[in-house]
Amino acid sequence: MKYREIRYKDTLNKYSVIIGDNILSILPKKIEECCPKTQKIALIIDGKVPKKFKKILSIKLKKYKLFFLSFKASEKNKTIKTASFFVSKLLSKNLNRSDLVIAVGGGITGDLVGFVASIFKRGINFINIPTTLLAQVDASIGGKSGVNSFAGKNLIGSFYQPTLVLSDSSFLKTLPKKEMICGYAEILKHAIIKDKKFFNWLKINTQKVLSREPKELIYAINKSCEIKMDVVNRDVNEKSLRMILNFGHTFAHAIEVKNNYSANITHGEAVLSGIILVTRLSHILKICKKNDLTEIVEIYNKNNLSYTFKNFSKRNFISKLIPFLENDKKNNDDKINFILLKKIGKTTMPNKNKISLNAIKKYSKIMAQY
Amino acid sequence: MKYREIRYKDTLNKYSVIIGDNILSILPKKIEECCPKTQKIALIIDGKVPKKFKKILSIKLKKYKLFFLSFKASEKNKTIKTASFFVSKLLSKNLNRSDLVIAVGGGITGDLVGFVASIFKRGINFINIPTTLLAQVDASIGGKSGVNSFAGKNLIGSFYQPTLVLSDSSFLKTLPKKEMICGYAEILKHAIIKDKKFFNWLKINTQKVLSREPKELIYAINKSCEIKMDVVNRDVNEKSLRMILNFGHTFAHAIEVKNNYSANITHGEAVLSGIILVTRLSHILKICKKNDLTEIVEIYNKNNLSYTFKNFSKRNFISKLIPFLENDKKNNDDKINFILLKKIGKTTMPNKNKISLNAIKKYSKIMAQY
Repeated sequence: MKYREIRYKDTLNKYSVIIGDNILSILPKKIEECCPKTQKIALIIDGKVPKKFKKILSIKLKKYKLFFLSFKASEKNKTIKTASFFVSKLLSKNLNRSDLVIAVGGGITGDLVGFVASIFKRGINFINIPTTLLAQVDASIGGKSGVNSFAGKNLIGSFYQPTLVLSDSSFLKTLPKKEMICGYAEILKHAIIKDKKFFNWLKINTQKVLSREPKELIYAINKSCEIKMDVVNRDVNEKSLRMILNFGHTFAHAIEVKNNYSANITHGEAVLSGIILVTRLSHILKICKKNDLTEIVEIYNKNNLSYTFKNFSKRNFISKLIPFLENDKKNNDDKINFILLKKIGKTTMPNKNKISLNAIKKYSKIMAQY
Repeated sequence: MKYREIRYKDTLNKYSVIIGDNILSILPKKIEECCPKTQKIALIIDGKVPKKFKKILSIKLKKYKLFFLSFKASEKNKTIKTASFFVSKLLSKNLNRSDLVIAVGGGITGDLVGFVASIFKRGINFINIPTTLLAQVDASIGGKSGVNSFAGKNLIGSFYQPTLVLSDSSFLKTLPKKEMICGYAEILKHAIIKDKKFFNWLKINTQKVLSREPKELIYAINKSCEIKMDVVNRDVNEKSLRMILNFGHTFAHAIEVKNNYSANITHGEAVLSGIILVTRLSHILKICKKNDLTEIVEIYNKNNLSYTFKNFSKRNFISKLIPFLENDKKNNDDKINFILLKKIGKTTMPNKNKISLNAIKKYSKIMAQY
């Protein structure tokens, strides 16, 4: 079986990310390698995942005692209450720390189940099988787990590395276009912050990625994971460097919160919008050149993605985002800690560009005039 | 100001444990050192802690924005619901990851607040000020945090190292005798598993420790922390070695669960009982000599501690414990993973002595005949 493998290693943990098409069959061998003491496996599966995958998993894993737990993954449902419910389920099935929990679903499922695994008996083996492009290229990498609270997204959680991530592109065949765009937003972000060559590749191949051409899709997933892994590896607990992954996300989160996480604007669309807004800000502050912005906008135009920022670029709208910029958990005071673009492939370092809310209010006028 | 300092360092974290009498005044200087970005501090305090300490803390820390949160610490109250409540409190006060949470109370408070700190925005600075002997010599060291569930104690939690532990023996002046014994049980356990010389010291000085002679008390706290720290340091996430700290605790937990965590039998009394039971088992299995058991029993007799195991050493009682041995989270199958005594100062290694429930049933007759 053909697959790509990226190895992660920090001082306490190591794990692999495996990427390929139709690769669920390797799961038993991998479990034998990474958690050989497993007897019981709880699979927590998003109800949206097509039934046939559950069937495949139950056949492949039949030598273990399996517990299938299904749930309706949603931001609303991604709460400490749901996490608590699953912890109780695992306790009642009497799983031990050497057993295994597998998440099958998108980013919400992975975040929630990772959190469950991290607090169950202070940590049980955890395999993540991300089933959306977004989860495969971003959420499944880096060990951030968490749930939402009344005060915002992912404000309760932990840093907990999985035992294995298995990204199978066969899950993506039935994924709605809107969700492909979600994942693409993070792929593009990774290229912009760290890899000009990959960005140039995306200039040519974006359409192929979005239409799921296997070769290009797997290449983009792999590249995206590599970039993220490299950043995370140098700053597991997000003390500093890791924050560059937040590029475009300060505005994106504000857009999502302001819209009450409405389904009309997906996370990916908000990120695509955020990337443009923060690149404009970078240009206004003379940190990047106009041409960097133009190159990015061209990719959007060429691939029908410009709708993502057109609506959110009006001056009025930008001003209205400002109150929602405040509550971001990465901010340590009243100023907003922006990651700005120096040039494609390179951002400013975290904590170097704190901008006051008043200044943003002032810039919002210019930001709307591009 | 005179105090002892033990430094902990693993690959990701470092912190100090500071031990002394009347040392709360050094807190501001230490906060400046270990979390200099702190602006807001939430103090979560067990209602049983004498009011004067709250007053002292509010004076010493007046340069920070303080939030005092009081609660009735109890095993019943040590739940994910309470943890969730405090996380919400911190969110509503808008604390950030670079702010600080301080626990002031016994082991329950420290475990709960440590868990809160670990999941709040994926980890906020956490200072533990343990106010009971048990918490000072044991619970505050090693980064285990957690809450109870319907299925047992501490089954939900995380490994999370504090930023600082400040053990002030002035808290112990008003501590009930029963609670002094609780802490003493772990001090004795640490001596038995790792340090014959310290055990010999305890032979002579136990009475002075229990009656709070400052010099002996601080010596015993310090020694106990050093032993635990050394073990933890070599196995932070409890993969193996760390389990030797569980010596005597498999029986102790069973005694507590069987008695529904009744206040009639404190954790320390259950541990003192567990130490005797498991040492008898070690002798039956010819792993330690009769004399090791005798030496331990002598310390109990000399210091009026024999009542702790007299009631729980009847054959009937031991058999009744067996069903409650099963659910321990450290067990990986139907056999019980015991840490046994080789000689005073040395135990068997974890996972070397798995004993079936049937065998224990058989031995329980002999265990009751000493």
